[in-house]
Amino acid sequence: MKGNLYIIPSSISEENIFPEINKDIINTINHFVVENSKVSLGFIKRICPEKEISYENFEVLDEDDPIITSKQLGLCMRGENIGLLTDAGCPNIADPGAKLILHAHENNINVIPLVGPSSILLAMMGSGLNGNNFSFNGYLPVDKNERSIKIKKLEIQSRNNNQSQIFIETPYRNQSLFDDLKRNLNNHTFLCVAKNIGSKNQKIKTMQVKDWKSKKEIIEKEPTIFIFHSGLVTF
Amino acid sequence: MKGNLYIIPSSISEENIFPEINKDIINTINHFVVENSKVSLGFIKRICPEKEISYENFEVLDEDDPIITSKQLGLCMRGENIGLLTDAGCPNIADPGAKLILHAHENNINVIPLVGPSSILLAMMGSGLNGNNFSFNGYLPVDKNERSIKIKKLEIQSRNNNQSQIFIETPYRNQSLFDDLKRNLNNHTFLCVAKNIGSKNQKIKTMQVKDWKSKKEIIEKEPTIFIFHSGLVTF
Repeated sequence: MKGNLYIIPSSISEENIFPEINKDIINTINHFVVENSKVSLGFIKRICPEKEISYENFEVLDEDDPIITSKQLGLCMRGENIGLLTDAGCPNIADPGAKLILHAHENNINVIPLVGPSSILLAMMGSGLNGNNFSFNGYLPVDKNERSIKIKKLEIQSRNNNQSQIFIETPYRNQSLFDDLKRNLNNHTFLCVAKNIGSKNQKIKTMQVKDWKSKKEIIEKEPTIFIFHSGLVTF
Repeated sequence: MKGNLYIIPSSISEENIFPEINKDIINTINHFVVENSKVSLGFIKRICPEKEISYENFEVLDEDDPIITSKQLGLCMRGENIGLLTDAGCPNIADPGAKLILHAHENNINVIPLVGPSSILLAMMGSGLNGNNFSFNGYLPVDKNERSIKIKKLEIQSRNNNQSQIFIETPYRNQSLFDDLKRNLNNHTFLCVAKNIGSKNQKIKTMQVKDWKSKKEIIEKEPTIFIFHSGLVTF
């Protein structure tokens, strides 16, 4: 019988935001495929302090080579459970993992995702913007012109389809993206800025663009999720 | 000082999929705005068996009237914490709550979402399809022709934007939607069928449409999330 592939959410700080059952499952797993061994070792030691674990229990995820990815499922094919971990957050949600998981499906390995924090989902829940129809767009283009075009295109899409648009940015470019959003979006578009989600100083705020303009908010390098919704707010 | 609005995920079955901190927070809250009082009372009694709570602690969410929604935040404006609960899942993720949350933002009430299960997010994690760019589309049109057009439109969107398309259906129409997907999608499109997510008999399976066609899978009335991704799988 084949083992299961557990998809395990993680975090670099808080431990009390994970269900107890995650700990029980992690305690039964001896082989982890991870984004970064040091980060994952730290996480597991915090969640399961009594677990005997070392770098020997880790294999670094290699998604560039599909053959290696498939090989990394070898133990699972032979009956052992495997845990997939990224540095912080949910594997495959704006994080690596897709190819390994797809290979598991191709090999009829049972895939079991565990409950845990996703800053994207938490931001969407807390935004008050339309969560019946939303699109996660990852990163916007870095080039200023292309980015402006993309923002305006997403705003039209939001208005036409009544769809909330979610995206993220590398922390050091957050302020510049925020300025671009204020410059390019319609004054009446609702914009949610969700900072430091999952940590003690998290802050979620939704206002119309005209109100953000008058607020002079500074985002600096805090991890931030941006969500906007254009047009009449009808859910 | 104003109270906080806590956005609380819930479930109708398992209790061990919630972080312990949710229980601590629920124990401090005496006023809940809920989708259905009976369901929410049952949930809180299971999560916090020692908590003294009755129907007097609940107010039914009324999103049709923005004035009432705003009034429901009255206790929060006067310093009390409020919890928002839907029947099962995360408020505002394919569930009610958006208007109340948006009113909280307008009234400068702090909005705090708690971690918990979202079948949409868990299905996306487990699908192995592109989670760097995905769109949650809610329900597709009921009319057969309109639905076929929509499926084909979303397939083009998936291919052009490398975007996974997620949607749900009323359980009794699941089988008919599944048949429509097999009929309308390209044979090489990857389709994930995620059934009974969050319960013990959950099952997530991703295959190309041609393989689903030969499998004769029956979905019946199990709660199901559908995700597809068209074109070359490049993440």
